[in-house]
Amino acid sequence: MMNAVPEKIAVVMAGGRGTRFWPRSRGHRPKQFLAMVGEETLLNQTVNRLEPDFKPENIYIVTTEDLAAEARRLLPQLPSGNVLTEPEGRNTAPCLALALVTIERAHPEGVMVVLSADHYIGERAAFLQDIETAVQHAATQHELVTFGIRPTHPETGYGYIETSGSGPVLKVQAFREKPPYAKAVEYLTAGNYFWNAGMFIWTLRDMRAEMLRHCPEVLAPLDTWSKAGGDRAQLLDIYRSLPKVSIDYALMEKSSKVAVVPARFPWSDVGSWPAVVEFRKPDEAGNVQEGNTILLDSRNCAVFGGKRLIAASGIEDLIVVDEEDALLICRRDKAQDVKLIVERLEKLGRKDLL
Amino acid sequence: MMNAVPEKIAVVMAGGRGTRFWPRSRGHRPKQFLAMVGEETLLNQTVNRLEPDFKPENIYIVTTEDLAAEARRLLPQLPSGNVLTEPEGRNTAPCLALALVTIERAHPEGVMVVLSADHYIGERAAFLQDIETAVQHAATQHELVTFGIRPTHPETGYGYIETSGSGPVLKVQAFREKPPYAKAVEYLTAGNYFWNAGMFIWTLRDMRAEMLRHCPEVLAPLDTWSKAGGDRAQLLDIYRSLPKVSIDYALMEKSSKVAVVPARFPWSDVGSWPAVVEFRKPDEAGNVQEGNTILLDSRNCAVFGGKRLIAASGIEDLIVVDEEDALLICRRDKAQDVKLIVERLEKLGRKDLL
Repeated sequence: MMNAVPEKIAVVMAGGRGTRFWPRSRGHRPKQFLAMVGEETLLNQTVNRLEPDFKPENIYIVTTEDLAAEARRLLPQLPSGNVLTEPEGRNTAPCLALALVTIERAHPEGVMVVLSADHYIGERAAFLQDIETAVQHAATQHELVTFGIRPTHPETGYGYIETSGSGPVLKVQAFREKPPYAKAVEYLTAGNYFWNAGMFIWTLRDMRAEMLRHCPEVLAPLDTWSKAGGDRAQLLDIYRSLPKVSIDYALMEKSSKVAVVPARFPWSDVGSWPAVVEFRKPDEAGNVQEGNTILLDSRNCAVFGGKRLIAASGIEDLIVVDEEDALLICRRDKAQDVKLIVERLEKLGRKDLL
Repeated sequence: MMNAVPEKIAVVMAGGRGTRFWPRSRGHRPKQFLAMVGEETLLNQTVNRLEPDFKPENIYIVTTEDLAAEARRLLPQLPSGNVLTEPEGRNTAPCLALALVTIERAHPEGVMVVLSADHYIGERAAFLQDIETAVQHAATQHELVTFGIRPTHPETGYGYIETSGSGPVLKVQAFREKPPYAKAVEYLTAGNYFWNAGMFIWTLRDMRAEMLRHCPEVLAPLDTWSKAGGDRAQLLDIYRSLPKVSIDYALMEKSSKVAVVPARFPWSDVGSWPAVVEFRKPDEAGNVQEGNTILLDSRNCAVFGGKRLIAASGIEDLIVVDEEDALLICRRDKAQDVKLIVERLEKLGRKDLL
């Protein structure tokens, strides 16, 4: 028996600031607008990846007002109105609720596919097949589906989903917070734990019903606003009344109607400079070099040069990133401290460098 | 009994390329033209240091043709003709022989004080007193005098002078080549070994007589050229016939009429980036910072910033030098490898960076 073909709507969240990629990423040029991995920006790759299976008018981007012009410039193939803007960032639950109330009248029978603009996904065919699996499940079983990424190492920076069952769609036993290391090792070896990568598939109707059940404080004010005409000038006040909360916490962890599709595609959240380095093939000395560089007697370094020459001798385990107005040198295992540098710049009022 | 007051002529050798200070030093901007230590260029400091005791018209600079304009610009107090130029660098013996034949007619009774433009010398009063001691000795005893620097560590990069005797002027037992480490330790503890710092004091007449005796192949061709009118156009050919040889090797090591005045002034040849760092007071973490820098969780580093921000996290024992078109990162104990980087740039034909 053939299933009906539901209308697929992609919602690409593109509001991130990406401070961990300073000095390459900046407030006006966050990670999703950069080609951190591959030849195109992560945002363009995210949209291109969908294009065989999604009509351009069914691909929506949600970003902040200051980034909307750049998103439209990068994505001329999308209707300009498909770039939705939040008045301010309040985490993912308000973001997706705003997308819902904006989109649902045009696509009442639609299935929403929620993606991040700044992740890496390989093997497009497998990815689109997994989406198809999830969409069919969402449309027929009326569950909220999330992609589960099979862990490759005991990562302590992600939430996990404990599953049961087998086959292309698994049951959810529990959502697990970011674990301590020993717990992460347990999850890795257990085999039925998956990383929660923040990609979701659900019908618009189910999303509405489950949000009204589990987090009406997020959706109801936006419904009221939308029914009153959706006046843009009033949205900021509405928005500021919403809790800053993730969709995982507000909805997924509370709903009993959730399922996991184990991803068969390679995935990375490209979360830091070392993650970017992983995508490059190092030379025999373990070095990755881009741009104008000379490395002598150096090992396990990644040097992302720009216009000027970066010359180094005798260095080890460093990441170097050159930009016109700023240069970063950091120990490979200290890459998360880039955030501290950004905080310092904020304290120093160096808006020119943020 | 009062001694006659001999006329003192300073000859400041300023032809060095200073590749060890790349990227700050360049072909057109060598170390002597930079304020590596202190507020003024090393060349200006060298000349200023002499001014209480030397008439400006008695201070000569010897440099290469491409550097002469900058030397004159930096030293407007000297007669323009006092900046002598070599057609090409052929080590110190030809350099000083050219100075001799150029200067001697105007100062037949003069005493030449040979100095380097790119060394640090502290305590000017002690320095000028030591010069006075050396000048008196040269003028009355007709020996070739060299300043001996009392070693502070077992340096393997300098030649040594073994002395005997005591008092303000010592006898020379032997010049010793750059020693291996164990030998350098011996010299250090012996007490009668001094570093040969390449500063010399001699009467013009004695210099002429001793050069004609020990290295006529250096002086005689220049004499012939000078007597024939000193046509500048012919100098390059003459010069190319001269051996590339140091005054130490050509003259000092061969002459039996040599003496040492132990220097009472602090001295450094400012030979490398770590030597420059020694002149700065480090913070509690052992870091030296100049310019626009942010260092987090970093130790024993020296960061010479420029216009752009240099931000670092978790780095140790590095020297970082920023210039508009190039940046150096090198391990503190690998600073001599800067030469290798310069050689690499030469091979790559990157004249813009040399």
